Formats: sequence, C-alpha cells, structure tokens
Amino acid sequence: MIVVMEENASEDQIVTVVDRLVQLGFDIHRSTGARYTILGAVGSRLSDLRGIELLPGVNKVFRVSSPFKLAARAFQPEGTRITVGSVTIDESHFAILAGPGVIESRAQLEQVAAVIASRGVRLITGNVGRSSRDPFGFQGLGEEGLRLLRTVADSHNLVTVARLADPAQLPLFERYVDIIRVDGENMRNFSLLRELSRRERPVILTRGESATVEEVLISADFLMSGGNRQVIICEAGIRTFENQTRLTLDIGAPSSVHKLSHLPVIVDPCHSSGRRDRIAALSRAALAAGADGIFLELHEDPDRALCDGAQALTIAGFHSLLDQLRSIAPLVEKSL
Amino acid sequence: MIVVMEENASEDQIVTVVDRLVQLGFDIHRSTGARYTILGAVGSRLSDLRGIELLPGVNKVFRVSSPFKLAARAFQPEGTRITVGSVTIDESHFAILAGPGVIESRAQLEQVAAVIASRGVRLITGNVGRSSRDPFGFQGLGEEGLRLLRTVADSHNLVTVARLADPAQLPLFERYVDIIRVDGENMRNFSLLRELSRRERPVILTRGESATVEEVLISADFLMSGGNRQVIICEAGIRTFENQTRLTLDIGAPSSVHKLSHLPVIVDPCHSSGRRDRIAALSRAALAAGADGIFLELHEDPDRALCDGAQALTIAGFHSLLDQLRSIAPLVEKSL
Amino acid sequence: MIVVMEENASEDQIVTVVDRLVQLGFDIHRSTGARYTILGAVGSRLSDLRGIELLPGVNKVFRVSSPFKLAARAFQPEGTRITVGSVTIDESHFAILAGPGVIESRAQLEQVAAVIASRGVRLITGNVGRSSRDPFGFQGLGEEGLRLLRTVADSHNLVTVARLADPAQLPLFERYVDIIRVDGENMRNFSLLRELSRRERPVILTRGESATVEEVLISADFLMSGGNRQVIICEAGIRTFENQTRLTLDIGAPSSVHKLSHLPVIVDPCHSSGRRDRIAALSRAALAAGADGIFLELHEDPDRALCDGAQALTIAGFHSLLDQLRSIAPLVEKSL
Amino acid sequence: MIVVMEENASEDQIVTVVDRLVQLGFDIHRSTGARYTILGAVGSRLSDLRGIELLPGVNKVFRVSSPFKLAARAFQPEGTRITVGSVTIDESHFAILAGPGVIESRAQLEQVAAVIASRGVRLITGNVGRSSRDPFGFQGLGEEGLRLLRTVADSHNLVTVARLADPAQLPLFERYVDIIRVDGENMRNFSLLRELSRRERPVILTRGESATVEEVLISADFLMSGGNRQVIICEAGIRTFENQTRLTLDIGAPSSVHKLSHLPVIVDPCHSSGRRDRIAALSRAALAAGADGIFLELHEDPDRALCDGAQALTIAGFHSLLDQLRSIAPLVEKSL
Repeated sequence: MIVVMEENASEDQIVTVVDRLVQLGFDIHRSTGARYTILGAVGSRLSDLRGIELLPGVNKVFRVSSPFKLAARAFQPEGTRITVGSVTIDESHFAILAGPGVIESRAQLEQVAAVIASRGVRLITGNVGRSSRDPFGFQGLGEEGLRLLRTVADSHNLVTVARLADPAQLPLFERYVDIIRVDGENMRNFSLLRELSRRERPVILTRGESATVEEVLISADFLMSGGNRQVIICEAGIRTFENQTRLTLDIGAPSSVHKLSHLPVIVDPCHSSGRRDRIAALSRAALAAGADGIFLELHEDPDRALCDGAQALTIAGFHSLLDQLRSIAPLVEKSL
Repeated sequence: MIVVMEENASEDQIVTVVDRLVQLGFDIHRSTGARYTILGAVGSRLSDLRGIELLPGVNKVFRVSSPFKLAARAFQPEGTRITVGSVTIDESHFAILAGPGVIESRAQLEQVAAVIASRGVRLITGNVGRSSRDPFGFQGLGEEGLRLLRTVADSHNLVTVARLADPAQLPLFERYVDIIRVDGENMRNFSLLRELSRRERPVILTRGESATVEEVLISADFLMSGGNRQVIICEAGIRTFENQTRLTLDIGAPSSVHKLSHLPVIVDPCHSSGRRDRIAALSRAALAAGADGIFLELHEDPDRALCDGAQALTIAGFHSLLDQLRSIAPLVEKSL
Repeated sequence: MIVVMEENASEDQIVTVVDRLVQLGFDIHRSTGARYTILGAVGSRLSDLRGIELLPGVNKVFRVSSPFKLAARAFQPEGTRITVGSVTIDESHFAILAGPGVIESRAQLEQVAAVIASRGVRLITGNVGRSSRDPFGFQGLGEEGLRLLRTVADSHNLVTVARLADPAQLPLFERYVDIIRVDGENMRNFSLLRELSRRERPVILTRGESATVEEVLISADFLMSGGNRQVIICEAGIRTFENQTRLTLDIGAPSSVHKLSHLPVIVDPCHSSGRRDRIAALSRAALAAGADGIFLELHEDPDRALCDGAQALTIAGFHSLLDQLRSIAPLVEKSL
Repeated sequence: MIVVMEENASEDQIVTVVDRLVQLGFDIHRSTGARYTILGAVGSRLSDLRGIELLPGVNKVFRVSSPFKLAARAFQPEGTRITVGSVTIDESHFAILAGPGVIESRAQLEQVAAVIASRGVRLITGNVGRSSRDPFGFQGLGEEGLRLLRTVADSHNLVTVARLADPAQLPLFERYVDIIRVDGENMRNFSLLRELSRRERPVILTRGESATVEEVLISADFLMSGGNRQVIICEAGIRTFENQTRLTLDIGAPSSVHKLSHLPVIVDPCHSSGRRDRIAALSRAALAAGADGIFLELHEDPDRALCDGAQALTIAGFHSLLDQLRSIAPLVEKSL
C-alpha cells in the first residue's frame, strides 16, 4: 500500500498515519519529497483502505498488490484448463453451452438435446428455478427438472450445466449437474461461494450487472480459496443508460479477464441483450473478441416458451449461427 | 398494452399480431390511422412484452397498466403508516435508524445503544452476518449477535432492525428482530421475499445498486403479494461512473417513490457514500428531499471497527448531525 | 402520441388534457376503458412530452411516431450507400479508416499513408486540432495539417477524413477533406450540424459517450434535415462504471442502428478502449457484430507519439489485424 | 508518478521502463521489494499515463500529484469568493440564480425580473440560444435577447447570467452579461475555455453529464490557467440508468468539490430532473448538502413556455420554495 500525504500535511499528521499503519502490522518506508511525503507500507493486509484515506492529511491511498491472488494471471501464467468428460474449456477452445432457458418438460428438453447433440455440441444447459425477472411467472420444475436434465443428457452423452442460487440445494446439484452456474445476482453470495469453494465441481461465476471485472475476479478468488480451482468467468452484460438491449454486453471483458487472470471467460449474449434478434451478432462478436465460449438459449417454439422466449434462438437460428461460428473460429485460433 | 405497428406493416403481419394476442387472452381494439395501425390489448396479463416486440411488423409495445399494483399509489392514495412499539414510520415522520454497522460485542452495542437512547432515537440497527464487500473479513456474530441486539434493545426500550439474507434464518430473526432489512443484493431474491411476504414482520426493502425505482417497487409488490403490507423502501445508492463516493445516492428517489407508491422510503447515506466525511451532508439532503428516515452507522471508535469503520459516524458526529436534523425537520413538515 | 390517464383521474382532469392537446393542434381519439381512459393524439408534433406528463391526472405519455424521420429505416428501407472516389461505405462493405490520431509532421503522415495504401486501404484519417482529453498537450497543426493530409492523400490516391469542431473552419475543411467527422462531444452542437446539413460533404456523426442510440439518430435526423443525406454513424463507446477500458464499446450498437435506421455505422475501437492492447479484439468484434467499418489509429512509433500513442496500433499490429479482418469479412458477408 | 512492476517482471523490463521515464525528464527512485519493484518518478509532467501502463512488465501506474493545480484546495486553502456588484458567491452564501430558461420576450422577462427582484434575488438568468435538447424548437432571440436581459436587469438592479457556447460571441456577452455560463456539453470545449481564461468575467463551468468531479476540475484548471480565477462549478446531473428523472443529480458533488477544490459549487435542479415536480425537493437537498447556490428556471405560464416549460417553476412555486430555502439556510450556516 502506498499513502500519499497532502502537500501541506503536518508532521503530526504524518506520524499519526505511520503509527496507525504500524499498529495494523505494516512496515513503513517513508519518502520525503520536495512537495509530497509518501509512505510505502508492506508486510500486512488491509482489505478496506478507506479508513486510512480518511485520516487527516492523507491525500490518496493506492493498493500495490492485486486485490485477488489465486485468480490472478501472475499466480498461474498459463491459462486454466477445465475438463469435464470429453469437453475442454480453455483459451484454445470456444465452448458452446446450449439448451432451453428453463426446463419445461421432457419433450421440450429432448428436442433441444437432440438438436445440439446432432451438431456436436456437448454442453447442455437448463434451469429449474424461478427467473429473477418475473416473480409471478413460471417457477421451474425443481428436482424433477434436474432429473430430466441428467437423463436426457446421458442419453445423448452430454455434460450438464444448471444455475444454483441456494446453498441448501447443493447436494441435489452434485447428483445431477456437472458444471454449476452462479448468476450475477449471487456473485457476492459468499455463503454459496464458500460451499462451492470446498467442492470439486466446476463453477461458472457470472459477473453482476453492476460489478467491475476486478470485482468478479475478487469473488472468483474467494471461490478458489477453499480449494476449488475450476472456475469460469461469465460476462453477461452490465447496466447502463442504453435501452435498446436489456444490458450492455461489455465486449472488452474477455480481454480484461484474460489479461488479469488465468481463468477462462465465456459470454451470455441471450441474457445481456434480452432479445433474439441480437444473439447472433453478439455471439460472433464474443468469439471474435477472444471469449472462450458462449451460452445459447434455444427453444423449438420460442413464442410459446414459458419463460424468456424472446431471448431464445429458434432451432433454425441455432443451426445457422453454429455454422457461422465454426467458420470463424479457426481464424481466431479457437477449436469449435 | 398498446402495440404500434411499423408504418409499412403488411395486413398479414397485423393479423398475426392480433391472433397472437387473442391466444394470450386479450381483447383487441384496432385503430387504423393514416400512417400507423395501433392495437389496444386489454383483459389479460403479460409480464414479458419482448415476445410481442419481436414479431414482424411491430414497431413498439407499451404497457398501459403499472407493472406493480399493491405498491402503487393508486392502490392506496394515502401513504402507508408502519407502527412498531412507540415508533411510527410514514410520510409525516423522519425516522432515525442507528447502530453499529456490524455487532462486534456486547460492550460495543451497549455503548451505542446508550447514546442513541439518550437522544430519543428508538430504532437500533446491527447486523450479524458477513459483509458482502469483504469475504475474508469479520464474519459477524450470528445468533449470538441477534440475542445481544434484543437484550440491549430491551434494556433501552428500543426497536430492533437487522439484515436478513437467508430464508432459513427467518425463524431466528422472528424471535429477535422487529424490522427485517433485505439488502440491495437480495432485492430479487424471490425465495426470501416470498417467505417475508407471508409474515407480519415489517420489511425494509433496499433498492439494488443497478435497479431502477420502478424495479424496486416491482419487488415490493411481490413482497406484498402474500399479505404483508408493512414494507419500507430504502434508497442506498446506484452504481455510476463517478468514484468520489462508493455509489451515487439517487436523491430524487424519495420523490419518485412517493409519487409512484404509498410506501415510506428511507435513505442509507453510509453505505451509498462509503465514507464518514459525507454522511452528514447526505443525511441532511435526504431529509430535505423528502425521505422518511435514514440509516446511520455509528461506532465509538470507528478506526478500530472490525468492519466498515470508514463509513461509521463517531459519537460526536452523531450528536452534531442529530441536532441539525432536528432543527431542519419541522421546516419540511417532518416529526423527528 | 398516446396519453394514459391515471385510474382515478377525474373527468375535469381528462377534459383539461384534451383541451391542451387540441390547442397544440392535435386531433384526439378518446377511449374509455374499465380502468383507464386513453387519449390518442394525432395530426401535430410535440418534441417535449414532459409538459403533458406533468398535467394532473396523467399517468404516462407515449410517443407513437419515431423521434426521427429522415434517419429512420422506414423512410428508406434499403441501406444508405455512400460513395467517395473509389470507396463505398454501406452495409455490404467493411471500411477501414486508418491514420495517425493527430498529424504531427509530413514524414509521420507519409509513413502511415504508404503503409495503408500498400495494403489497399483507401481512407486516411488524421486530425489537426487539440485533443479534448489533454488541454495542455499538443495542439495540432491546424490548416498546415489539412494541407499535408490532402497532399499525402493525393500522392497515394486516398480519401481524406478529419475531425471538425468549429463551424468557422468549414470552408477550410471543404477544401481539403472528403469526409468530415463530428466527434461525440459535438453530437448536439446544432450550429455545427446545421452548417454541415446544407453541404454535400459526407459526415461521420459520433455518438456522445452519454447518448443513447436513439439520441444519436435524432442528431443524424437534424443533420439530414438541410438536405445532406450522406451521414455515417460512429459508435465510439459509452461511459460506464467499468474502468479497465476508457469507455465501454456498445457492441450492440451496430445492430441497433441497422434496425432503427438505414445509415451505415462504423466503430472506433481506439478511442473507446483507450489502449493499444484491446484494439485488435474490439476491431474483430465490430466486424463480427455487423459494423460497416472501423477507425484505426496507427503510428510508426507510438511510444513517441505527441498525443494518444497509447491507443495507436504499431505498423506490425496493423498488418496483422488487417490480415485477420480480411479473412473474417467474407464469413459475415462483408467486402473488405 | 509511481510505477508498480509485475511480480514476475524481468530486470530488462524494469530497465526499459526506467529508461523511458528518464527520457521523459523524470528522476527515478527505485525500490526493490520481496515481491514488487516500485519506481517513484518525480520532476516532470506526463498527462497521459497509458503509454507507461502498456510497457511490458508494468502492473499499475499511479499519479501522485493532483491532475489539477490551480483549482485544487491545496493551492488555496480558503474558499474562493466571487463578488459581482452586490452579490457574493462563496461557501458562506447560498446564491439563487433565477430567470426564464430561455428569453422569449420583454414582457416575459420583465414579469420574472419583477418577481425575483421583489424577493431580494439579485442574479437573473436567461438564455438566448437554441436548446441542445430540441434542434427543431425555438432558436432563441440572440443579441436582441442579451439586450433585453441587460435592460431589464438594470431596471431592477440585477446581475446577469447567460449561457455561451460559441467563442465568436464572447464580445457580445462581455457587453451584456456579468457572469457567463458554460454548459456541460462544452465542458471540454477548450477553444471556448481558453478565451474565457484570458478575461476577467466570472464563469460558471457545468460538469458534463458523463464527466467525473475530477474531470470538471481539470477543465476548471485549464480555465484558470490564463489568469481568470473567478470560476464556479455547476453540478447539473449525470447520466445513469435511472429514468424517473432526465439525469441523476449527484448530491455528493458539492462535498466532493469542496474537498478537492476551493471553488464554489452550485446546483441545477431544473436541468438535472427535467420536471417541475422535483425542483423543490432537489433545491432543498442542494442547500442541505452544502451547495453554494442553485439555478431556478421560472415562467409565468410554464405550459405555454416556448422551451422547457416542464422544468420551470411557476411563480407561486418559486415563492413557496424561496420561503423554505430561507428558513433552512441559517441552519446550515448559509446566508440567503
């Protein structure tokens, strides 16, 4: 930590800051310049710098070390590779995670599974709980949905992905789900993250719609602190004033995550745009921008979907998009 | 719902939209203008308009009815009054909710309680769980903290307020806590809201940092749908690009809530600014802008607080702020 | 315009609204429903709906017609094609506009021009005024810069593009510059837009960093209102809370512009990211997302650039990016 | 400037950074820690740190000195006092600047002037150019408007304030206008600021709707660099996702400006909210939050205003608000 004192800070103020830092366990290196006194503090840890910033005579406080460690690129210069069954998620692949937004019935799930499996997509997604967007809407199938997901996935040799919000349901998810997704509203649900931290199950951690890239990596760091190293970051849009799309996809996020961290990063074009007519453009952009995969919601008849049909691809739309992505992928050095 | 077709929409496109709306249970009034065909749809409910917006030939879709009902001002033109013990929260009062950010020990809590009780403040706050800002920091005292809160409050005849994040802890909170706060990260935690919806306990529902005023009222509506009518909205700042304060307090929110809803609205200057030197100014502004109360974190020795000391008032700061608020309140027709 | 009255609006309130609209020149169609009275108003124009919204008893006011006409897709369903010399900018091409951020000297410009011309890029950019980011920095070469731009461009048979901020300089620009760029800070400089509106010169209109897509199209509409139909929209990033990049590129904007308007839309990855190490990813994403072109700043020795070197590509970076873009373009049906 | 190298930065990378900084005129103090090498650079000036940030092996770069000097609180610890005629604008006063949004006619201006003068308000505002919100709307009276403003002001002994956008009109403004306002869209119009910088005329510099508090102070610094020390900052709202009001008033901005700078800061509740029914609440909040004044638009018959009537107070509303502000002001130690 570096503390820059005000130009006109008094010696008393400087000594007070030094004493406070020493109490907190820091060693202090003091540098007295023509205009500024600068204090370098090392040897301890302080998560909340604001207490120092507010001391009289302090101008600014900078954190030298990264606010995350295990998730930092410096901790592991080569990118993390996550392998589940025959699927690899890493910087050299572009993973397609596809399925209905919400599982409605075995027939619906089976149709979608058959389509994706026929195209060589190996990750099937499907949620079983209530959407956070419409509290009065369809509530999901719960455990029955998870069972369907597993059964249908097994019959097509697919890997399952589903969203978990409640730590109490973790045993259930461990039975049926290969990769667990934590959505953006739970990015700081540390009770949930602590439980996931102690398991072996890969986790997709979604950036909250008001979180910076650094902040999702801090949550990832916590998620890794219990031993789980299989973490994937998901960019799903941030809230801005623009309203043509539900959220604004931060297309710079894949590069930012790759620079700051060794973790893979995937993109959710359906949730971020909220509208079917943008999914193809955003998916191609995600691939071109260096993302390591995308989520795709698809539905045989989106107009009749029980939930979020407007942000689901049709089957025809899925085929056509997959064709495009497969043609572009090798040009950006991605296996798909 | 009103559907405005594109200027060049074909008759086929119009008929398709009409058919779709009829299937969804709407009666349709069609108005054919020189340039636009406009469809008025009544008699049903559709939470997600996007499916209609994406139909070919549709230009725009407007919702005529409010997206919330029970929370709407039209539902109850006079403002909601919430009474707990000797405390009233409504548009004619300015409630002070004060206490430590996090309960650390009986001594700490007792000191703060004695201070606020001596000044006639009747609502004591104090959290018992981990902060969502620092996962590695102090984890809170849990049930022991709730017990302390109740004991200390009773000895000073205070009403208790604490933050709840996990529905499983609700029975515990019902034993010890008079008013339950749901923080902004749980504004769309509908499992939690459903449980609270069925109880009698007053709830303070905090606007999420990326939620609009309308969106927090939609959550309030859901919270009221099970029968609980004692809901208070809390404005605690929204995320913007400005970085002098942690969040940007939306000082227009009290007026917006009062216009759209009959629910009381309070403000959290500590969380929204994240820094002690802004609390007094924001608290006065909240009162002047028509808020019905504020949260104040205070600590006998904020520099030694286990959590968030930088955003806690000192005892001296609390006394001085309270003096100011008491002098201003009558000028804006508020009892304090 | 559609006016939805409050559920409990009185007949007096309704009549007052009707009278006000009639005074403003509207014909009114009144529809009295079980819960809401709705007024349809046609036949006049009102740019500012807020006066109606604030009348007693009014719940909401919707604009039926688009806030822009000449720029609207409905006005001209086929996309606008702009041709300057041998260059075409439209939905079937991907235009590369490349050059130094600021013109520093003839040698610098000549080097860059030789590079881009050798690769078949035909649009050279180069500004001659002060950057709005650093008021104390390099002030640009002014008219001398424009003259250099023209001379160097002619020797390589290139089309010139430069940024204009001051209407007084328009005659100068008309002499030297083929396509005039208006930057985001001047998106609502209506004195400037009015002058440009009356000329034949193609204009690139940049979205302001706090403007919505609709708002830049309203400015485009004004720009077209004097007769100039050669307008190109430029997405250059919006201001958000994310700080890994200077601004957040709205990668959904190309699709939004194409849906709402017939105008071509290009992207500025250098200004929006503010850092060289993001330009390639954002450029590929722009192409994949359907943009009709990009701006590229390049510099033979960016570390020694007088201005904004950090957001300029090196020559090697330019070659490598162009190779990638040329390989991707046909896969998204773009000529490059 | 402090440069923190990556943990695994090589000696070659460190030497390259040191060499680059020395070339730029800095003296370097190198501190080699167990994990990080840190370089302190003093003695020169670099406005754009990004070039250093992008050098290989660099982790972060911090600016130690403030990005503004003349506007910084450290430059002049006591607050700036601006005196025009009998009016003082400083931290101990709360200035009311009132008038029509746009000058429409002598009669309109005279009515408003008589009202404000009768209440002891001494600063009259009134613009003479086109609004940037509606390019097709009323264009303002130009010089004739300025002449009216001066004449009417003189007959009531008022100080005049008007908005200037075009440097070419400065001589005209110098003849008629006592205090010149630069609106947010011109906050970085450095040609305009340079001209104003060389004059004696006090300037109100409005924060742009996508600018941070630090950024408006950087512009203020430039404005002061030519010798003009009479600068007032104006907070007029920032663009966020919230849409109940046009912009979100940053009610923390007055405190932020006072902490960082010695310049007075006023607030514009009319422009920031865009709606009459919020002006009183936001004005009271501005006073309570420590602002040094407010802008108030008023109109005898706002429903018939040629421009922005929806954000103008009625005369009755003005009287009632002024009464409230006068009763609150002494409680926050402001003369009004």
